[in-house]
Amino acid sequence: MNLALINIRQLLTVSSGGRRVKTGEAMRDLGIIENAAVLIEKETITWIGRMEDLSMGSLKESDVLDCIDKVVMPGFVDAHTHLVFAGSREKEFAMRSAGSTYQEIAAHGGGILSTVAQVREASKKDLKKSGRKWLNALLRHGTTTVEIKSGYGLDMTNELKLLEAINELSEEEVISIVPTFLGAHAYPAEYKNRKEEYVREITDRMVPYIGSKKLATFCDVFCEEGYFSAADCKHILTHAKHFGMLPKLHAEELSASGGAELAASLGAVSADHLEHITDEGIDALARAGVVGVLLPGVSFFLNHAYAPARDLIEAGVPVALATDFNPGSCMSYSMPLMMTIACTQMKLSPEEAITAATLNAAAALNLSQEIGSIEIGKKADLVLLDIPNYAFLPYHFGENHVDKVVKNGVVLEV
Amino acid sequence: MNLALINIRQLLTVSSGGRRVKTGEAMRDLGIIENAAVLIEKETITWIGRMEDLSMGSLKESDVLDCIDKVVMPGFVDAHTHLVFAGSREKEFAMRSAGSTYQEIAAHGGGILSTVAQVREASKKDLKKSGRKWLNALLRHGTTTVEIKSGYGLDMTNELKLLEAINELSEEEVISIVPTFLGAHAYPAEYKNRKEEYVREITDRMVPYIGSKKLATFCDVFCEEGYFSAADCKHILTHAKHFGMLPKLHAEELSASGGAELAASLGAVSADHLEHITDEGIDALARAGVVGVLLPGVSFFLNHAYAPARDLIEAGVPVALATDFNPGSCMSYSMPLMMTIACTQMKLSPEEAITAATLNAAAALNLSQEIGSIEIGKKADLVLLDIPNYAFLPYHFGENHVDKVVKNGVVLEV
Repeated sequence: MNLALINIRQLLTVSSGGRRVKTGEAMRDLGIIENAAVLIEKETITWIGRMEDLSMGSLKESDVLDCIDKVVMPGFVDAHTHLVFAGSREKEFAMRSAGSTYQEIAAHGGGILSTVAQVREASKKDLKKSGRKWLNALLRHGTTTVEIKSGYGLDMTNELKLLEAINELSEEEVISIVPTFLGAHAYPAEYKNRKEEYVREITDRMVPYIGSKKLATFCDVFCEEGYFSAADCKHILTHAKHFGMLPKLHAEELSASGGAELAASLGAVSADHLEHITDEGIDALARAGVVGVLLPGVSFFLNHAYAPARDLIEAGVPVALATDFNPGSCMSYSMPLMMTIACTQMKLSPEEAITAATLNAAAALNLSQEIGSIEIGKKADLVLLDIPNYAFLPYHFGENHVDKVVKNGVVLEV
Repeated sequence: MNLALINIRQLLTVSSGGRRVKTGEAMRDLGIIENAAVLIEKETITWIGRMEDLSMGSLKESDVLDCIDKVVMPGFVDAHTHLVFAGSREKEFAMRSAGSTYQEIAAHGGGILSTVAQVREASKKDLKKSGRKWLNALLRHGTTTVEIKSGYGLDMTNELKLLEAINELSEEEVISIVPTFLGAHAYPAEYKNRKEEYVREITDRMVPYIGSKKLATFCDVFCEEGYFSAADCKHILTHAKHFGMLPKLHAEELSASGGAELAASLGAVSADHLEHITDEGIDALARAGVVGVLLPGVSFFLNHAYAPARDLIEAGVPVALATDFNPGSCMSYSMPLMMTIACTQMKLSPEEAITAATLNAAAALNLSQEIGSIEIGKKADLVLLDIPNYAFLPYHFGENHVDKVVKNGVVLEV
C-alpha cells in the first residue's frame, strides 16, 4: 500500500543528514519545508519535497491524505518508560502534596516496592491488558515508538513475566516497542540484608537467561548510592553486554554518584535522568557521545531539581526527552507536555525540544538510522498535528493536538 | 426533559451545606457518595443519593445515563480567563526559553500590547469565531462556566467590541459565560505619557456606558506599581460599583502593591494572582472573605513564583483555581492540569484543588448559590470522568479524562 501526504502546511523533517544524533546548534535545525508532500511506499518514506515539485499525475486518489492546515513531523519516540505495571500510586501523590518525604512514603508501604508487590500478584494477562490500554493512549498522543523497562518483578519469575508481557505486546500491537531489562531497579524486600546476593542473582541467573532468549535489547541499572553502586552497575552491565544487551543507566538522579562517567566508560547508549550531574559527568557524556535522556515530568511531578539541560546541550551532549511514564514518579505519557515542561523549566527552545523527542530519542534506543526523522529510506512513522505552526506544540499546552498518526505507512485515526 | 445518572462509581457533591465558599479544613471535604445516583428535572438537580435508595420504577429508560466506572463531579468553573483574543504569542514563549526578560520581549513588540494591536485589527465576527473554538475546547475539557475579561481593546470602541463579542457568545453558546470589563489591563500606547487621562477615559466614558448597558458583571483592574496604582484602582472600582459592576482585582502579581488590602476594603468578590501577597494582605482577604483566585498555570508557563497557597488556605482565605487562559502568560484552558500544577508545585491536596476548581471558583463569580456543587436545587452542570477515583484527576496528568459533560441538564458528547 502506498500513501501520499500532500498540502502539508509545515513539515518538520528533523533531517539528520545521516548523523546518528544532533548536538549543540544542530538541535535547533528542524529541516522545515513549508507546503510540503511526503510519499510512502509500504512502510518506507520514498520522497520528500515541496508541493510544487510533486508530480500529482502518478498518485491514486485513494492513496492521498490531504494535510492542509496540518503540521507533520516524525512520530514521538518515548525512550524511557515503565509502562507495564500493576496498581497505581495516587495516595503517594496526595502524601507528597501534604509534605511527606520519600522515606515516610516508603514507611507507609509506598514507593517502588508497592508496585513490585502488585506486579508479583498480577498475571501476565492482566499486565498485558493494562499495558495495551496505555499503549493505545500513547499512540493517541503521537508516540510511535516506546521503550519499556522491566524492574517491577525483581526476581527471576516476575522479571521474566514482565519481559514476556512486553515482548508479546511488541508482537501484537501497532506501536513499536523496545524492551529493556531493569532487574537492578531496587532491592527486593527479601534481599534487603543480602544485597550482594541479589546482584549475583541478576548477573548469574537473570542476565544469561534473558540475554540468551533475546528478551531485552537493553540492560538498565539504577546507579545511586544506597541502591546500586557504580561498581555493582559496572559489574551487571559488563555481564549484560557479554550476553548481547546494550547498556543504559539511571544516572545522577538523586545525587552525583558517578553514573555519567560509568556510562561513558562502558559506551552506554544512554544515561538517563542526570538531575545532579557534575561538570565532569557532562564532559564524559559529551566525549563519549552518550545520549542524555532527560525526564522533566519527574522533576515536575515530584517537585525535584531539573537536569541542567542547557549545560548539557552547550557541552555537546546529545539530549533526548522522555516521559518516564510510571505510577510513582510520572503518571503521564504525553510527550508534548514533557516538551512544554522542558521549555518552561529547563529553557530548551521549542526546536531543541522537538529534536530531543524525535531524532535524539531514537538515538537513545539505537534506532536513529530507522526512525526519528522524515528522510528517504526511513520508516514511515509520522504524526499530523492540528496546530498553525510547530511552536504551538510546547506553547499551547494541556491539549492533545494529534489529528492522525501514520504508523508503518498506515494512517491511524486516533 | 429529565435525566437520571445511575451507578456512579464515585460522586463528588462538593456539598457546601448552603455556605457561599469552603475554607480551611472544609476544603478537603468533597461530600463523596460511592455507588450514587443523581436525578435532574429540566436544568435542575432534584435528587442525590445512593443507588440502593433510588426508586428505579419511576425512571424512563431513555432518561437514564449509566455512569458505571465513572467519577461524577461538578463541572469546572474557570473564574479567570482572557479567552477572546486575536493572534498568538508563541514567539514570546520561545524568547523566554532563550532567556529574554519581559522588558526585552516588550521591546521586540511583544507583550499585552501586541495582542491589543491584533484585537483592534480584528472584526467582532473574527473574535467570536476564535472565541467559539476555544469555548468548545473548554467544554471538551469539562469546564461548564467561564469568566471572560475584556482588556485587549483599551479604548472605548474596542473594549465594547470585545464585551459585545463576549455577551453574544454568552447568548449563543452552551457554556455559561460571565463577562468582566478590564479596561485597566494596561495603558494603551497612545496614552503612554498621559496615564491620568486614560484612567479618566475609563471612569468617565467606559464605565458609565458599559454599566448602563449591563455588558459586564464585574469590573477588574491590574493593580501593580507601574501599571495601575492602588489609588487608581480604588477610583476605577468605586466608579464601577456605582454603575452596577462588582469589583475584582489582579493583585500582587509581580510585586506586593497593596491590591489584596484594597480588595478587602472594597468588598471585592475576588483578588486574583497573589504571587507576592504579604501576610497582612492574606489577613485582609481572610477577614473580608474575598476569594483568592490562584493561577498556577501562569507561574508554570512564565517560570515565576507561585502564590503561597498553603498560607492562604491556613489563614482561612477561600482559595479558587483558574487557568488565566490567554496567549501571553498561560496558553492552556485545562482546569485538571491547573490542579496538577497546584498539587505538585503549591502543595494543595487533590481535595483542596477540586473544591478550588468548583465551589470556590463559583464563589469567585458570585454564583455559588447556583453552580459549583451537586446539591438539590442547583443547576445540573456535571462532568463524567473516565478515572478509577477522583485523585486521578490531578495525578494522571496530560490526559483529558472527560467522558461526557452534562450542561443545563443536557448530556453533551464531547
